Amino acid sequence: MDFKASGIMTLTSDFGLADPFVGTMKGVMLRINPALRFVDISHQIPPQDILEGSFCLQSAYAYFPSGTVHLAVVDPGVGSLRRPLIAVTRDYLFVGPDNGLFSFVFSDPTFQGAYGLTAEKYFLRPAGATFHGRDVFAPAAAWLSAGTPIEEMGQRIHDPMTLKFPEPRVVGTSEVQGEIIHVDRFGNLISNISQELYERLRSGWGNRPIRISILAQGIGRIVRYYGEGSEEEPFALFNSSGLVEIFWKGSNAAQKLGVKRGEKVHLYVV
Amino acid sequence: MDFKASGIMTLTSDFGLADPFVGTMKGVMLRINPALRFVDISHQIPPQDILEGSFCLQSAYAYFPSGTVHLAVVDPGVGSLRRPLIAVTRDYLFVGPDNGLFSFVFSDPTFQGAYGLTAEKYFLRPAGATFHGRDVFAPAAAWLSAGTPIEEMGQRIHDPMTLKFPEPRVVGTSEVQGEIIHVDRFGNLISNISQELYERLRSGWGNRPIRISILAQGIGRIVRYYGEGSEEEPFALFNSSGLVEIFWKGSNAAQKLGVKRGEKVHLYVV
Amino acid sequence: MDFKASGIMTLTSDFGLADPFVGTMKGVMLRINPALRFVDISHQIPPQDILEGSFCLQSAYAYFPSGTVHLAVVDPGVGSLRRPLIAVTRDYLFVGPDNGLFSFVFSDPTFQGAYGLTAEKYFLRPAGATFHGRDVFAPAAAWLSAGTPIEEMGQRIHDPMTLKFPEPRVVGTSEVQGEIIHVDRFGNLISNISQELYERLRSGWGNRPIRISILAQGIGRIVRYYGEGSEEEPFALFNSSGLVEIFWKGSNAAQKLGVKRGEKVHLYVV
Repeated sequence: MDFKASGIMTLTSDFGLADPFVGTMKGVMLRINPALRFVDISHQIPPQDILEGSFCLQSAYAYFPSGTVHLAVVDPGVGSLRRPLIAVTRDYLFVGPDNGLFSFVFSDPTFQGAYGLTAEKYFLRPAGATFHGRDVFAPAAAWLSAGTPIEEMGQRIHDPMTLKFPEPRVVGTSEVQGEIIHVDRFGNLISNISQELYERLRSGWGNRPIRISILAQGIGRIVRYYGEGSEEEPFALFNSSGLVEIFWKGSNAAQKLGVKRGEKVHLYVV
Repeated sequence: MDFKASGIMTLTSDFGLADPFVGTMKGVMLRINPALRFVDISHQIPPQDILEGSFCLQSAYAYFPSGTVHLAVVDPGVGSLRRPLIAVTRDYLFVGPDNGLFSFVFSDPTFQGAYGLTAEKYFLRPAGATFHGRDVFAPAAAWLSAGTPIEEMGQRIHDPMTLKFPEPRVVGTSEVQGEIIHVDRFGNLISNISQELYERLRSGWGNRPIRISILAQGIGRIVRYYGEGSEEEPFALFNSSGLVEIFWKGSNAAQKLGVKRGEKVHLYVV
Repeated sequence: MDFKASGIMTLTSDFGLADPFVGTMKGVMLRINPALRFVDISHQIPPQDILEGSFCLQSAYAYFPSGTVHLAVVDPGVGSLRRPLIAVTRDYLFVGPDNGLFSFVFSDPTFQGAYGLTAEKYFLRPAGATFHGRDVFAPAAAWLSAGTPIEEMGQRIHDPMTLKFPEPRVVGTSEVQGEIIHVDRFGNLISNISQELYERLRSGWGNRPIRISILAQGIGRIVRYYGEGSEEEPFALFNSSGLVEIFWKGSNAAQKLGVKRGEKVHLYVV
C-alpha cells in the first residue's frame, strides 16, 4: 500500500463536545505527530448510533484532500473482541472499530483493502478497555499520518464487518417505498431515494408524474432549491448528496410533519 | 484591491455541528489551499436567522489578524437569484450571500467595496442549487485566501443588500426605547443601546439618574462587572462590545425575567 | 522558569459555542502569535461551574505535548479582585482566573510555581471588566506561547486559590461513601472513588466482595468494559481516568437511575 499523508486528520464520533474525550484524542495525536491538523466532521452522532455515524462520514469524506486520514469512533463494543480496523482507498485511510461504521468504504470503487490493527507497540500504554478512541485509534491514526507503513500496523483481513443500510423496496408495479435516513438541523428529511433511482423509476413508469407522500401527507413536486417551495405545504428536491429530500420552506419539516428517522416515504404513480 | 491573505479563515453559519456541513466546507477549502487554518466563530446561529448571524460576526471580526477571510453562510435564499458576495475592508475579506448578512461591513470606516461573485470556474463543479456553502462560497473563499485577485472572481457592485437592524427610538422628551438584540449562553440580555448613546442621553437629560426597565421590571443601576450585581434583582453594565447588558448575578436573567430577543428595554428619567 | 512552547494551546471554558466568545479569543491570540494552533477541550462547562471545568481539564491536560499552554476560563468573579493566574508544571503552562480552577495543578508532582498575572502591557487595551477571557487571559496566554518569559508577566505568588473537591468519606468500619462528580454524554456516572482506593478497601476488608449501590439501587459487579455489562441492571467499571464509573449497557444510566452529579455512591461489605 502506498499512502502519502497530507497531514490532515478528520474526526467523527459520538463523544459530544462537552466531555474532554475529543480534546484528549487530539492531544494524544499531537504528541505523536505535532504537525497534524484536525477537522471535526461531527461529534454529535447520537450515542452508539453506528448507522448515523456512517451516513455522516460517507457524505463528507470525499471532499477532503488526497492523503487525509479519517478517524471515526462510534464504538459500543469497545473492549470486546471487535477488531480495530484500518481501511484503505486510493486517496484516504480510515481508522476505527470494525463494526460496520466503514461499510461504505468497502464499496468505494477505489477501495484497496482492510487491515486488522494489531501492533500494540503503536497503542497508548497501558491501553485500557473503555476508551479505545484515546488508547488505540487515535495513536494508530497519528502514526499512520506520520508515515508509518500500514503493513507495520496489522495484517490484511478479508472480512471487515458490513452493516446493511435500509434500501428502497419495490411495492407492486407502481410504488417504491423508501425511508428517511437522516433529519438535519433544519428539520429537512433526507431519504434513501437517489436522484438516479428517481429518474430510472420515472422512465420505467412511462414518464408519468411521480407522487411522493410521507405519513399520508402529499408532497409538492420536486423543485430545484428551497426558495422554490411553499410555506403552505412540504416540497422535495434532490439535495447536495443527490438524495430526495423533503423540506418545508421557512419551517422545520420534521416538526411540522411529526416525522423521525426511519419513517417510510412513498413514491408512486396513479 | 490589495489584499495580503494571512492564511486564516473564520467560519460563521447556521449549519450546526451535528451535520457534516461545516466539515465538508473545510475539506473543500483544504483541497484548494492546504495551508489554510480555520477558526469557527459560530455555527449555532438559529436556522436562517440573518440578523443573529450578522450580530455574531460583527462582534468578532475586528479581533482577527489583518488578512483574515471571513466566510459566513446564513442563506435562506440559496439557489435563488440572490447574489454571492465578496466585501472588502482594509484588513479583511468577507465571503457569503448578498442578503444583508454583511450589512455592518458596508458601514465599516475602512470599507473598500463589494463584488458580485460570478466566476464559475472557481466554484465546485457541478455546483448544485442547495448547498452554496460547499459549492460556491467555500471554494471562492479558499481561492481568495490563496491569493487569487478579487477582480478575477467577479465584478464590482454598488448595491449590496443592507438589513435594517432595530434602532433605539426616542419616546417623548424623557424616554428612549431600545430592544434586546441577543441573549447569550449565560442568559445575559444584550440591548442595542450603546454606552455612547447612554452617555449622550445622560447629559441631554441633565445628568439625572437614568432608570432602566424591561417587562415592567426595574433594573438596578449600571455597575462595572457581574460580581457587583446582586442575587436579589437584575443589574446592568456596559458589556465587552460597549452595549447596555442586563444580567442577574449567579442566575440566568433571560429565564428569570422571561425575556426573549426582541423585548423592548426602556431608559427614562423621572 | 524554563518553558519551551510547542505552539499548541488548549481552551476550556463555559462560553458555549453559539456566542462568538471563543472565536474572538482565538482571533486575539492569532494577532499576537500567528503560528498558534488551538485544541478545544470543552466550552460546554455549565455556566460558572468551576468544579466541572477543573474536572474536565484535569482529565485531559496530561495527554498533550510538552510545551502546551492550557488556557481555561470559568470566571464568575471577572472584574472583581480575584487575580489572573499563571501556573507552571514541568511540561505545561496554565493561564486563567485564580479561583480554584487550577487546584489540581498545585498537586501535580511536577508543579513548579504560580504567578499573579499583572503586567498590563500584555493585556488588550483598553481591557474591560466583563470579558477577561478576551482582554487578559487570551493575550497573556498568546504572549507566553510566543516565548515571553513568565517572569515578565507577573510576580511569584504562594497562595493560589484551591477548591475543595468532594472526597470519599469512611463510614464506620465497612462502608465508604463516594460521590458522582461527573455525568458524561452517554449518561455514565463517574465517581470520585479511584481504582487505587477501591483496591486498598478490598484488601483492608479482607478481600470480601465489595458491593456498590446508588439511590438504594444495587450495582452489578465491576467488569472490564461496557459490553460486559447487562441490559437488565447497571454495572460498574474502572474508567479511562481510573475512577469507578457506573453505566447501564445500551442505555443512559443517569436517566434510568434518575441520578445527577452530587449523588452519593456507597461501597460496602456485608
